[in-house]
Amino acid sequence: MMNLEAAGIGEGISEVIVTTKSGAGAPNAAPIGLVTRRTEAGDLSYSVKLYRGSQTLANVLETRTLAANVTDDVVVFVTAAFEDVRAADFTDFEAVPVLKEANAWVVFSVTSEEEHAEYFQFLLQPERIKINRKAVTAINRGRNAVLEAAIIATRIHRAEDERAKAEMRAQVKNYKELVMKCGGPREHAAMRILEARCSGL
Amino acid sequence: MMNLEAAGIGEGISEVIVTTKSGAGAPNAAPIGLVTRRTEAGDLSYSVKLYRGSQTLANVLETRTLAANVTDDVVVFVTAAFEDVRAADFTDFEAVPVLKEANAWVVFSVTSEEEHAEYFQFLLQPERIKINRKAVTAINRGRNAVLEAAIIATRIHRAEDERAKAEMRAQVKNYKELVMKCGGPREHAAMRILEARCSGL
Repeated sequence: MMNLEAAGIGEGISEVIVTTKSGAGAPNAAPIGLVTRRTEAGDLSYSVKLYRGSQTLANVLETRTLAANVTDDVVVFVTAAFEDVRAADFTDFEAVPVLKEANAWVVFSVTSEEEHAEYFQFLLQPERIKINRKAVTAINRGRNAVLEAAIIATRIHRAEDERAKAEMRAQVKNYKELVMKCGGPREHAAMRILEARCSGL
Repeated sequence: MMNLEAAGIGEGISEVIVTTKSGAGAPNAAPIGLVTRRTEAGDLSYSVKLYRGSQTLANVLETRTLAANVTDDVVVFVTAAFEDVRAADFTDFEAVPVLKEANAWVVFSVTSEEEHAEYFQFLLQPERIKINRKAVTAINRGRNAVLEAAIIATRIHRAEDERAKAEMRAQVKNYKELVMKCGGPREHAAMRILEARCSGL
């Protein structure tokens, strides 16, 4: 099986933008954790959990295919999480919609699936890989903080009660401070989108 | 002035390994936040805060020079924070010690300094830049979590009281869960070094 290290996908959970299309061809993008584990035989296995109710799940059940778009641009993550990615931002790779601006694309096919109460877990096989742009990138705590804030923000509507919500809002506020202190213009822009789109914050 | 985007250093605070040498030539490495701001004139300014008592400060006061090593290998961050980087891991670039494995090096000279109670703030001018290795890297929450845990761990001995220490330990424990869940082998190794070296945890 292909090794995806060149596409920036190593062991652990890689935060990527998963792009898919519906049976009718409409593209969709959503931030997803792509899980890479080493099996007992020493091979790498790739999997994703896709939650019921999501367009990504509906599309993968229809097409048995998805693309992982690797990027560290947090504006892309927040846009995919809270807004619709514009049609003009997609292109095609191996007949799958992908994000033009991503640093790498990996197209996966589904090899098997497990149905759970809240999600499906899909085992994936990489089919094609394309590296678009390599770079040197320093670690930026603000970049990380936007992502953590976005993860909390996507869960806030599922909070058990007002107390849990208040706690989550406080966490987002802490992350925002880190974004404003450590982030650059992209991180600040991503935080603005997040705040504008999450009425629960 | 040089633009350091190619070395992965953009606006905001870039977490880098600062390498320096003493007047006698002994190399040192420490994780430092390199601050990049846009001035009112539209230029980029670079600065660091170096805390009193640190070897990095002593060396910069002697040599007026430092190198920023850009890497996203968290083992390097944790090692530089809690252990001595081995002499064999350094090489020379423009007569400044740098880390062989870093993805990029930027040598800075000091243009001015401000003395504060706890630290010196140095304004820096980039003198030479070297790109060693470009790559695609997916965002990994475990990678970020190791760094956050390490930052807390370096501050735990300065905690005001036992209650503050307990709170910091709880934060490190939460980050460790994220490292174990989302990180790969390098993140797990970095967490082990952190735990072995921080008796306060």
